[in-house]
Amino acid sequence: MQTLSDIGESEIIRRITAGLESSGEVVTGPGDDCAVIRPAGSGDCDWVLTSDPVIENRHFTRDADFAQIGHKAIARTLSDIAAMGADPAWALINIVAPADLPVDDLETLNASMQATASREGMLIIGGDVSQGPELQVHVFGIGRCPTGAAVLRSGACVGDRLYVTGELGGSQLRHHLCFQPRIAEGRFLRDWATAMLDLSDGLATDSHHLAEQSKVGLRLNLSAIPIGPDADQLYDDHSPLYHALTDGEDFELLFCIAADRCAAFDAAWAETMKLPCCAIGEITDAAGRVVTVDAEGQAKPLSDEGFQHFRAR
Amino acid sequence: MQTLSDIGESEIIRRITAGLESSGEVVTGPGDDCAVIRPAGSGDCDWVLTSDPVIENRHFTRDADFAQIGHKAIARTLSDIAAMGADPAWALINIVAPADLPVDDLETLNASMQATASREGMLIIGGDVSQGPELQVHVFGIGRCPTGAAVLRSGACVGDRLYVTGELGGSQLRHHLCFQPRIAEGRFLRDWATAMLDLSDGLATDSHHLAEQSKVGLRLNLSAIPIGPDADQLYDDHSPLYHALTDGEDFELLFCIAADRCAAFDAAWAETMKLPCCAIGEITDAAGRVVTVDAEGQAKPLSDEGFQHFRAR
Repeated sequence: MQTLSDIGESEIIRRITAGLESSGEVVTGPGDDCAVIRPAGSGDCDWVLTSDPVIENRHFTRDADFAQIGHKAIARTLSDIAAMGADPAWALINIVAPADLPVDDLETLNASMQATASREGMLIIGGDVSQGPELQVHVFGIGRCPTGAAVLRSGACVGDRLYVTGELGGSQLRHHLCFQPRIAEGRFLRDWATAMLDLSDGLATDSHHLAEQSKVGLRLNLSAIPIGPDADQLYDDHSPLYHALTDGEDFELLFCIAADRCAAFDAAWAETMKLPCCAIGEITDAAGRVVTVDAEGQAKPLSDEGFQHFRAR
Repeated sequence: MQTLSDIGESEIIRRITAGLESSGEVVTGPGDDCAVIRPAGSGDCDWVLTSDPVIENRHFTRDADFAQIGHKAIARTLSDIAAMGADPAWALINIVAPADLPVDDLETLNASMQATASREGMLIIGGDVSQGPELQVHVFGIGRCPTGAAVLRSGACVGDRLYVTGELGGSQLRHHLCFQPRIAEGRFLRDWATAMLDLSDGLATDSHHLAEQSKVGLRLNLSAIPIGPDADQLYDDHSPLYHALTDGEDFELLFCIAADRCAAFDAAWAETMKLPCCAIGEITDAAGRVVTVDAEGQAKPLSDEGFQHFRAR
């Protein structure tokens, strides 16, 4: 009898989304960072919708700071909204908690969720609390953007330059609990990017997501990848570059800019944004293929290994 | 150290919603069956938003039919949308499942969710799958209705008649897994009801919710309460009437009609709806108090006992 761990997350998602119906109001269904809808008569605005869980022993352990767990729950959702270039608007939150959870911990978690949401202009307007064996927080987030402005994963064109914000790797040391969702950057990018997503599964896996959704190939210049200081602090057998390529939960933005707009984009970004971003590769016509090129010009295919739920690593 | 079981669900909700911010676009925040928003420039439509979990060993046991679990997950959300008098539109679904869950069970669950959603015109447009110790399904539902038409819990007026659809009690025998959300009835009632909610915690508890939100009192005529056949099949010490009053998960609609419209309402309902509904009481000016009146005219206060998460019963 086949179980979920036999088939893995990608195949699970393929199966449960296979029969889904759609309608003219659905711009983008499952497969992007958010679904995008354009309700009839809704004026000059598209809506983006996303739902993200944080689950004890998967996304955090009980010894984590409850303020950080609350921050992460909201920030994951904000990061998905940022990856569409949208503005956060509303959230509903389902909390599942064991009956023996100290009230103080719940209040710390909750205050942190409210603070992070408030800082980014997202109102918490509903939810549910239920009892369960482990702490889980499920955040349902809604954002909005001008009609047609949402940046999808499917918009990359051959010749576009590939960029990433910030630095990558080593997120599990601390970054995954205290990262800043790239809301301002995403909003800026909706006027520039042809395609965008947030790095939640790791650059290697998420590059494949971009390639698949846009039906293009990617070439990553290894020497250009911005490696964060924590990627060198993990004391395992892997290089910092390996961590930057494969670690999940960076929550930086990976996006594409048309080649003929790159000079103007670089100048506009430098003038407007504090956070650095850098060009790390190009879009190619080798549909679905991701290759890395090292400093000597040697090209190698990059597998989509990275974080997958359900599969043993 | 105080834990969640020490303070119980109502107090937990009071604490986590205490500091929430709002805005002019939020018609109704936490405390109703759905939140209601009226986005600037959104045309002639209000949006209702709700999130409901179904959790293993709380809302079902693993020996339940996976098709029924899937149905219940979607139907709970549909019931909340019905209780606003709104039309279902979209849903996102977070599934948390153990790695050893058979793929066939997940596919059965999923097919059932799609079938129930499709039957009521709700499109599933996104979600997430994650690994966790027990099966949980969190459904985020969105509905819509004409601007200002959503029926809130807070609209009951002194003198209104109190009605309920269908029959109550004994839901845990089978009804809680196969109930039909009252979408058509809710849509019909948005032109009639002054206040409405769905019975999820049980008539006793939910009557108090209505009284509190509307700042009125309720008088329930015990002999008028429609008792379902399953309320008599539980083989415990309690009467069928006790079960009809206190059992949770009836998912029928409890609503108020202005006294001077009752004759017209009764006629319109009888002509349009197949499901029976009946008048079971009145709205009084004894704010926050619920009393029952028996066949001899004897009045007694009704406590708000019913299902409360976290508290031992």
